[in-house]
Amino acid sequence: MQFNDVLELVRDDLERVSEAIRANFESDVALIPTIGNYLSNNGGKRLRPIMVLLSSRFAGYAGARAITYSCVVEFIHLASLLHDDVVDEAELRRGGPSANSNWGNEASVLVGDFLFAKSFALLAKENVPEVLTSLSQASCHMAEGEVLELVNHGNLQIAEEEYLDVVYRKTAALFESCCEIGAYLGQLDAGAAAALRAYGRNIGLAFQLVDDALDYVAHEDRLGKSIGKDLEEANVTLPLILLHAQASPQERAFLNGLMEAERVDKRDLATVIEYMERYHIIEEVLGRARAYADAACEALKPYNANGDSEPLMAVANYVIERQE
Amino acid sequence: MQFNDVLELVRDDLERVSEAIRANFESDVALIPTIGNYLSNNGGKRLRPIMVLLSSRFAGYAGARAITYSCVVEFIHLASLLHDDVVDEAELRRGGPSANSNWGNEASVLVGDFLFAKSFALLAKENVPEVLTSLSQASCHMAEGEVLELVNHGNLQIAEEEYLDVVYRKTAALFESCCEIGAYLGQLDAGAAAALRAYGRNIGLAFQLVDDALDYVAHEDRLGKSIGKDLEEANVTLPLILLHAQASPQERAFLNGLMEAERVDKRDLATVIEYMERYHIIEEVLGRARAYADAACEALKPYNANGDSEPLMAVANYVIERQE
Repeated sequence: MQFNDVLELVRDDLERVSEAIRANFESDVALIPTIGNYLSNNGGKRLRPIMVLLSSRFAGYAGARAITYSCVVEFIHLASLLHDDVVDEAELRRGGPSANSNWGNEASVLVGDFLFAKSFALLAKENVPEVLTSLSQASCHMAEGEVLELVNHGNLQIAEEEYLDVVYRKTAALFESCCEIGAYLGQLDAGAAAALRAYGRNIGLAFQLVDDALDYVAHEDRLGKSIGKDLEEANVTLPLILLHAQASPQERAFLNGLMEAERVDKRDLATVIEYMERYHIIEEVLGRARAYADAACEALKPYNANGDSEPLMAVANYVIERQE
Repeated sequence: MQFNDVLELVRDDLERVSEAIRANFESDVALIPTIGNYLSNNGGKRLRPIMVLLSSRFAGYAGARAITYSCVVEFIHLASLLHDDVVDEAELRRGGPSANSNWGNEASVLVGDFLFAKSFALLAKENVPEVLTSLSQASCHMAEGEVLELVNHGNLQIAEEEYLDVVYRKTAALFESCCEIGAYLGQLDAGAAAALRAYGRNIGLAFQLVDDALDYVAHEDRLGKSIGKDLEEANVTLPLILLHAQASPQERAFLNGLMEAERVDKRDLATVIEYMERYHIIEEVLGRARAYADAACEALKPYNANGDSEPLMAVANYVIERQE
């Protein structure tokens, strides 16, 4: 099964998710639907809703709650994107101007707050304590992960395990929660539910490592955002951590200099990419990502008797092979 | 009954609220408790927790949930302060440097997100759908109110009713929700619950109008933040709206100029204050605030047979007479 088949499988559901997203952006404060629609029409992959939908199907649930929760996880994700772009002073997002370049940081902070509040208003309406607990804890983890990332700016000495903990919190916790929702909706037994959570967590880790790698190799027109952004912001991700660990003293000195530099130009980025090629860093990062994706599939293998895990496994492949 | 008597009445409870706040700031991400403790030790009046505590007592509830919910409403308030100070580029808050001056906008946005997420994690643990609904809707209103305020920057033509709608959303909705929580905890009948909500809503409106007035009259050393901040940011509040409506064409032209100005200096502020004195604007704003406080007390009068409303009425007085 390919990712396109997965998209076909959930196409109608995703259409309903899009409708729910549009409906829940509504507010008599016009700037909220304006920014909301801009964000949600801006070519997001809707990966987190897909995780909710596929996990629910895997667990044998096909009701309307999966649509609402898909909308909620996308809102939480969009809120964090809005705030991230403010924190990172990002000018581009998915090939177009970021919301903060169009409407200012103030609006991005406040509309992010609205989306976040609205998520919990939707959860209150559904009134399922297990889901509320899962998503509120994932949201705490996300904020903690973002703060940790901020604190570790420019720190090339960060231990790999510590970095992976940041990745778990800022990205993988929400993926894990998406799958936990599906397990809950389908009332899976404890073993299968744990497997589904492990799948989500590993997909989230793989997804973020691929993101980190793409920031050093993607073509600007495909990724839809500038490459070298992490380097420019001294945002230390796995490629830099691995490079720093293997680099010569001279190369390390250069890297350390970039962490302190006022600005990083195209030539600096080219040098770093050259170092990364020398030590096959990107291959190594993508290898780790592949290992997480494999672990994700492994967790679901015992539950694939009737091919039930196939769509989720296709997502694991897509997460690794995507170029954007 | 004076406000000091009210503080005495809830002193032990407020101590327990402070402990809950400290405990719930905890995170292995050290910057979160650092900023959290800075905020919560920075001399806040804890007015929203006091509203939860007094409403609960009024409704005949004296259990532990009032402590937890007091902590939650303070977290929601602190999160919104953190984000407001980023939006307003505030350098001072309660007499000390604001969190964003100390730790940067990025940390303020993200720690605000943490406090907000943590609020909903605490609500998930308590698992009372009515309270979750009330606070998630109040949070949506707050975000909408802040966006509206932003959109109306520099707009001296804003209708008074529209401005009061902004005030309801950004400030009064949370006060109303604090009182609704108390009504729910004490299982008040519908009539008394509606009265308590009306009290909270009117207190919130009065509180914000006094805040707006104090920004044009308070002494810097007492208010703990610079005066003239609203004018500087072209943040149009009731004093400016009323002044603009009554001002001469010349005075209006001056006010319009200030809305467009790159910066507003002390002399400009002095001129605006002189205009306000000419038209008795601050008296008028404080008169409106007093009317809201009176309406708050009026709502509770039928329930004061045994003096049960006295502490809440004392808060209404304090909100009007406070100098900071």
